[in-house]
Amino acid sequence: MTESVKYLLDESRMPKAWYNLVADLPVPPPPVLHPGTLQPIGPDDLAPLFPLSLIMQEVTTACEVEIPQPVRDIYRQWRPSPLYRARRLEQALDTPARIYYKYEGVSPAGSHKPNTAVAQAFYNKEAGIKRISTETGAGQWGSSLAFAGALFGIDVQVFMVRVSYQQKPYRRALMETYGARCVASPSDETASGRAILAKRADHPGSLGIAISEAVEIAAQRDDTNYALGSVLNHVLLHQTVIGLEAMEQMALANDYPDVVIGCAGGGSNFAGIAFPFIGAQLRGGPKVRALAIEPAACPTLTRGQYAYDFGDTAHLTPLTKMHTLGSTFTPPGFHAGGLRYHGMAPLVSHVKELGLIEARAYHQIGCFEAGVQFARAEGILPAPESNHAVKAAIDEARRCKEDGVSRAILFNLSGHGHFDMQAYMDYFAGKLTDQDYDEAELATALSALPAVAL
Amino acid sequence: MTESVKYLLDESRMPKAWYNLVADLPVPPPPVLHPGTLQPIGPDDLAPLFPLSLIMQEVTTACEVEIPQPVRDIYRQWRPSPLYRARRLEQALDTPARIYYKYEGVSPAGSHKPNTAVAQAFYNKEAGIKRISTETGAGQWGSSLAFAGALFGIDVQVFMVRVSYQQKPYRRALMETYGARCVASPSDETASGRAILAKRADHPGSLGIAISEAVEIAAQRDDTNYALGSVLNHVLLHQTVIGLEAMEQMALANDYPDVVIGCAGGGSNFAGIAFPFIGAQLRGGPKVRALAIEPAACPTLTRGQYAYDFGDTAHLTPLTKMHTLGSTFTPPGFHAGGLRYHGMAPLVSHVKELGLIEARAYHQIGCFEAGVQFARAEGILPAPESNHAVKAAIDEARRCKEDGVSRAILFNLSGHGHFDMQAYMDYFAGKLTDQDYDEAELATALSALPAVAL
Repeated sequence: MTESVKYLLDESRMPKAWYNLVADLPVPPPPVLHPGTLQPIGPDDLAPLFPLSLIMQEVTTACEVEIPQPVRDIYRQWRPSPLYRARRLEQALDTPARIYYKYEGVSPAGSHKPNTAVAQAFYNKEAGIKRISTETGAGQWGSSLAFAGALFGIDVQVFMVRVSYQQKPYRRALMETYGARCVASPSDETASGRAILAKRADHPGSLGIAISEAVEIAAQRDDTNYALGSVLNHVLLHQTVIGLEAMEQMALANDYPDVVIGCAGGGSNFAGIAFPFIGAQLRGGPKVRALAIEPAACPTLTRGQYAYDFGDTAHLTPLTKMHTLGSTFTPPGFHAGGLRYHGMAPLVSHVKELGLIEARAYHQIGCFEAGVQFARAEGILPAPESNHAVKAAIDEARRCKEDGVSRAILFNLSGHGHFDMQAYMDYFAGKLTDQDYDEAELATALSALPAVAL
Repeated sequence: MTESVKYLLDESRMPKAWYNLVADLPVPPPPVLHPGTLQPIGPDDLAPLFPLSLIMQEVTTACEVEIPQPVRDIYRQWRPSPLYRARRLEQALDTPARIYYKYEGVSPAGSHKPNTAVAQAFYNKEAGIKRISTETGAGQWGSSLAFAGALFGIDVQVFMVRVSYQQKPYRRALMETYGARCVASPSDETASGRAILAKRADHPGSLGIAISEAVEIAAQRDDTNYALGSVLNHVLLHQTVIGLEAMEQMALANDYPDVVIGCAGGGSNFAGIAFPFIGAQLRGGPKVRALAIEPAACPTLTRGQYAYDFGDTAHLTPLTKMHTLGSTFTPPGFHAGGLRYHGMAPLVSHVKELGLIEARAYHQIGCFEAGVQFARAEGILPAPESNHAVKAAIDEARRCKEDGVSRAILFNLSGHGHFDMQAYMDYFAGKLTDQDYDEAELATALSALPAVAL
């Protein structure tokens, strides 16, 4: 029996500021463009959707952004989150690797998402906002914003990708327990939703469509703002609390990662764990390999184009330069609903282009296999999204064994899978397939990318 | 926005020994009787089911029992568990009460049950046991033993009460993820199960029946032992780690509870939080009110008889003196499956008779109402069982407001409700009823209590 080793940070050492990678980059990220003028947007263009404080965070080049005290007070319910050395997994793999994981499933909603949900709810409350609309894929973001809304007395309306709405009724029940209203997207509550349903009544939905619906609702009402659970710079910023804590915890372990791994859908949990380490490297610190792991059925970083594109399907959002499969691309309904986004965080895409990170795509069955192996060794049942990071960590540990080298592998276990048991049941029943995206659909979606001179 | 306040203990202050209330009681508990001879049993009588180390713990009068280092090494994955001051709930209730809760949902299996599952798996492994059979109601115990079995390489077979097996397929999937085998009870795998099915093919099951099945399997094979998730002295002993930590954490908070609350099915989580405080009182410390909360549909402590009875339905277990509804009593299929046991831990019953604890019974709808209020304030979604403790804490806090008195209320939040979302969905859909037990069935079950002279 080998124990797990837990590295806890004292609350007093919880980060007081988020870290902004932009400050340390050798090349600034490309500007965000207005969907009408195709010119760089200003703060006013985003004001119908976001409070000014978040808009300023979106464009800041400061190295640090202070975490407001009320946000820190709420973070302290579950932060600093634990960092574990996975000794039992190492033993099961018979690997010389040192495997560490940062566990974000300890938050009330069960994932890393409350790190930004609480911050966004705080800034919206401060701005006098009464209602927030948002989208959710697997439901991790929706339930996190529902949790944050309950704390701040803000009404939350969640457009949930229909296929996840059907696969994960319990995630929806969690949102409702927190008092949020959850509707399947595409819905008949918005013009964007109705337009999609008119073409295909049983449309499975996508994050791109759900974003259109949530943005449409927010743009119409002064007391309503929009919140996004990933992709945007300010969301990635809030998630850096993960990596900042992990740096301190690795120091407690007298170790430093050779490899840092996160799964990547919109990119925020990957950025959260990896950006502080990449920043340290850019400032002259040790070199780390940063691995973003995505699903083979929605391989944005590995198969998408780096181009200006819309964040949503109805083209209501600004244009950002990112790795994209095209905003009309609808991935197959695999079980890691949180990774079904056609685009990628512009900042993650930018650092990929700068050669600061690597990307890899995995099929789902191997990821569930890795997740079950992890659960049997470490006791924690990962979310299907997080299983992508688990598999990469196991693969890297196996490579260490082949190479006869001990490397330190750090991955972000971004959430637990308690609301994803149907996926595990399907896996055990042999009902899962390693779906691929439709090549023809991808070609069509890419050919429809907007023409932008920049 | 009021923050939650978390009291964390340093790992170095995790208890090194469990606490045995028997050592401090003014009157020793009544002996356990052999089902054949009706005479007090000896260690040999239990040897077919349990390792000697656990049998000795069952009868020890020592004040402390050392926690083996390998058990402590595993505990450290999630222990010391956090103790919170529920300031946001206090604010929502506008109460002068100071509400504290100890949160056991941070364990990998999501409840307090791994505290004893890990210990039992350790002692069985040490004794060379290859397989453990057990019963489970809601699935919290079964998944905890499955987790512990995975860590120690012991096969686990779980007889799950049929109504829970049907209501909670995801809890079953969790057990299977950990590698355990789970069957609906009554099953056709045992003589006890087949006898019940012959009378009623759609029997909903009960913990008493599931225990018979698990005991039968264990008694037949030398390499197989039985494990019980509650009721027995050694199980209560292992759970005292909860209260021992809570005492230290209350000291960190510069406070001491006036009231200590736990829900009570078999009695182990209640004993775990309450016994260390009751022991301190018996040794001259401050007086605490200890409240055991049970479901009105299975009201063992409040409506049962204090009498010798069997622990199971097929009468394979020894006789213990306890509050019982009769071993043939089948409670209605309400949603707190972990509280559906006909008996009560003999040690909890004994201290009830000594006037050291109080008991109260609640209907389920009010408990869910309390759980939703708690979730919206504190972010954590309680298990339906734990909702009984939540409701009692809220009721006590309301009494503080009525009385204009600030009292310190400590309750054990024994587990999260992530695998119980169907129950919450049923609650929101208005499908729950406040079922009562059948008075005629209770009378019949009580009239069938065995005649014991002692």
